Amino acid sequence: VERSAGGDRLGPAGVLELFRTGRAKTRSDVVRLTGLGRGTVSQRLDGLTEAGLLVSDGEGVSTGGRPPRRFAFHSSHGVFLVGDMRAHHIHAAVTNLEGAVLAERMLSIDVAAGPRPILDQLIAGLEELLGGLGRSPIEVRGIGVAVPGPVEFATGRVISPPIMIGWDRFDIPGHFAASYSCPVLVDKDANAMAFGEHRWCWPDHPEMLMVEVGTGIGSGVVIAGRLYRGAFGAAGDIGHIPYGPGEGSGEEPTCRCGNVGCIEAYAGGWAIARDLRKLGHNVNQTADVVTLLRLRHPDVTALIRHAARIIGVAISDAVNILNPSLVVIGGELALADEPLLAGIREVVYRRSLPLATRDLQITVSQLGGAAGVIGLALMLGDRAFAPELIDEQLGFRP
Amino acid sequence: VERSAGGDRLGPAGVLELFRTGRAKTRSDVVRLTGLGRGTVSQRLDGLTEAGLLVSDGEGVSTGGRPPRRFAFHSSHGVFLVGDMRAHHIHAAVTNLEGAVLAERMLSIDVAAGPRPILDQLIAGLEELLGGLGRSPIEVRGIGVAVPGPVEFATGRVISPPIMIGWDRFDIPGHFAASYSCPVLVDKDANAMAFGEHRWCWPDHPEMLMVEVGTGIGSGVVIAGRLYRGAFGAAGDIGHIPYGPGEGSGEEPTCRCGNVGCIEAYAGGWAIARDLRKLGHNVNQTADVVTLLRLRHPDVTALIRHAARIIGVAISDAVNILNPSLVVIGGELALADEPLLAGIREVVYRRSLPLATRDLQITVSQLGGAAGVIGLALMLGDRAFAPELIDEQLGFRP
Repeated sequence: VERSAGGDRLGPAGVLELFRTGRAKTRSDVVRLTGLGRGTVSQRLDGLTEAGLLVSDGEGVSTGGRPPRRFAFHSSHGVFLVGDMRAHHIHAAVTNLEGAVLAERMLSIDVAAGPRPILDQLIAGLEELLGGLGRSPIEVRGIGVAVPGPVEFATGRVISPPIMIGWDRFDIPGHFAASYSCPVLVDKDANAMAFGEHRWCWPDHPEMLMVEVGTGIGSGVVIAGRLYRGAFGAAGDIGHIPYGPGEGSGEEPTCRCGNVGCIEAYAGGWAIARDLRKLGHNVNQTADVVTLLRLRHPDVTALIRHAARIIGVAISDAVNILNPSLVVIGGELALADEPLLAGIREVVYRRSLPLATRDLQITVSQLGGAAGVIGLALMLGDRAFAPELIDEQLGFRP
Repeated sequence: VERSAGGDRLGPAGVLELFRTGRAKTRSDVVRLTGLGRGTVSQRLDGLTEAGLLVSDGEGVSTGGRPPRRFAFHSSHGVFLVGDMRAHHIHAAVTNLEGAVLAERMLSIDVAAGPRPILDQLIAGLEELLGGLGRSPIEVRGIGVAVPGPVEFATGRVISPPIMIGWDRFDIPGHFAASYSCPVLVDKDANAMAFGEHRWCWPDHPEMLMVEVGTGIGSGVVIAGRLYRGAFGAAGDIGHIPYGPGEGSGEEPTCRCGNVGCIEAYAGGWAIARDLRKLGHNVNQTADVVTLLRLRHPDVTALIRHAARIIGVAISDAVNILNPSLVVIGGELALADEPLLAGIREVVYRRSLPLATRDLQITVSQLGGAAGVIGLALMLGDRAFAPELIDEQLGFRP
């Protein structure tokens, strides 16, 4: 109530947002969408163009007189650096300010080597990509890192991570601050994927659950069209829901997190690799599981079917609690499209209430392996062009 | 963006809200909180007073000159009628416009008797309470009904309810429309409880889970300070999360919903009554279980401890997914304060991730049996005094 008091006039940030989200192309679009006067709109457009945030984009279609000048969000006025980390690799990418990937590379790592060497390897990889594009570190407007562990989002610190040995409470943004002065955000992997997938592919599903089925299992929760992190950043942790009572009966497998009987300890990529080794297969990582999956080896197909039913139990719990209209399955094992999706659907439709499943869609990721890097870049865009920052930068006081 | 364009001046509704929520008492308070001019504020206060929404509330403390006139929300300018229904009773109440209970009564029902006779009994009971207060049906500003089943909130219809036989898709608001022209809202019982408990007792916990442990088990989810209903109104259904795979091994108890192995089929009041009967006790309903509980009979204490661990499993799943900062346990069996709370806490702290439980509080309801009726009345208040309605009623166009 207080905030909108005294006339909350729309500043340049609001006008920029119309171009950034593709809703406006011309001055007339802005006048129509905002109700601001033509003079005010011209002033806003001039300010945004001078600040390098908007660019002239040719001429639009005339409706009679002189064709209107078109404007566009200046998406190449800087770049974002992003790294989407898993246990054994980082998907490193340079993106433009709209989240389009300009250059990318897979870096092999062992996440348990600890934060400093791995983040230095990431920085070196990103700077090579940057150099290859002929761009300079000074053009970097934001850095985003997704990690396979719980993150206290406000501080960018990983908290009591099950697999990121040596990372507990490490100040990831602080490590970048030695070389970069731009904002650095850190989030858990499934959140980055959920954000990318939601914004680019499913904006019409304000209540969405993105489930990552890779080496580990996690989820990102979208509520009212926004990423929901919970009170402390731990929301969406379905991988460590115990399958069964989790009381250590002696029959339940031990999880990477130290507990017994977690969903992930039955159905994560690492658990499937473990079970394949017991069957005599030479597999080490989730990537090896994916290779066998591509070959349609019956052992792995059977294990994936079993895993799907267990993951389905966790997803049905989440569906009962959150009641989303869409569940998107992503991650390396989502390649196993048919058996994985069929198994998950069967369990969710059986275990959840009719009202929750009546109009529920369950589908696989559209962005595939790129969901994480795109999600990070889009999060950075929202942060770099946050209305209060832009209005302040352009000297506008509402 | 569009909404705030062109100067979103604060109308009378925004000023009323300051009094309704207790943030303003005088004209000066409004000037300070909103930045509106004194003349505009006086005009708003006059309009609201003429419309009967504000009343003069004596004089405030002078800061030098004439003591300022005090205003208050006119909470007796009408009443709300509410009915909080369970399988065997309805808590019927008349409240003022701030949610304070003016008169109340317990009505005995059998919910399976179907909607018409039960709603007619509720209407008769409410009208008797109304008459006892010397108030007339014309003063009723809203009617709220909470039911023990899933509700499609937009239409006020119960959808595929497990225990409300004969209620499926019944138009509850339509039944009241024959006698009342005011708004009628219908929500599931745990949502009404969550709303009341959150608004009156825990406004500083924007992420809260309210768990009802009564005849059935359900929950209401508060996110970002608002009740979260999910895409279709089914959010928070933890009672029908299967405890274990729910595949019908033959050992799992059958639930009232028709599935097997639901949390409720082990730990709801009806399931505990079933288990007590097997032990030779003469118990029919949850109320009988509560009686034994008050007597601290060791059989019921042991069953409650067991139930607490099973309910704890469902709550820990919800904590992993939602990451609230507060879990409130309410419902008839929450009387079993010590064994219930201890068992739930033990399981949740063991089964959930450290980041999710680090600052998590688990406590019992402050409002007790009144949470539902108070929650309904507060929801009705938000609806009756919704800013767009008030501004329209007072002819204000932003």
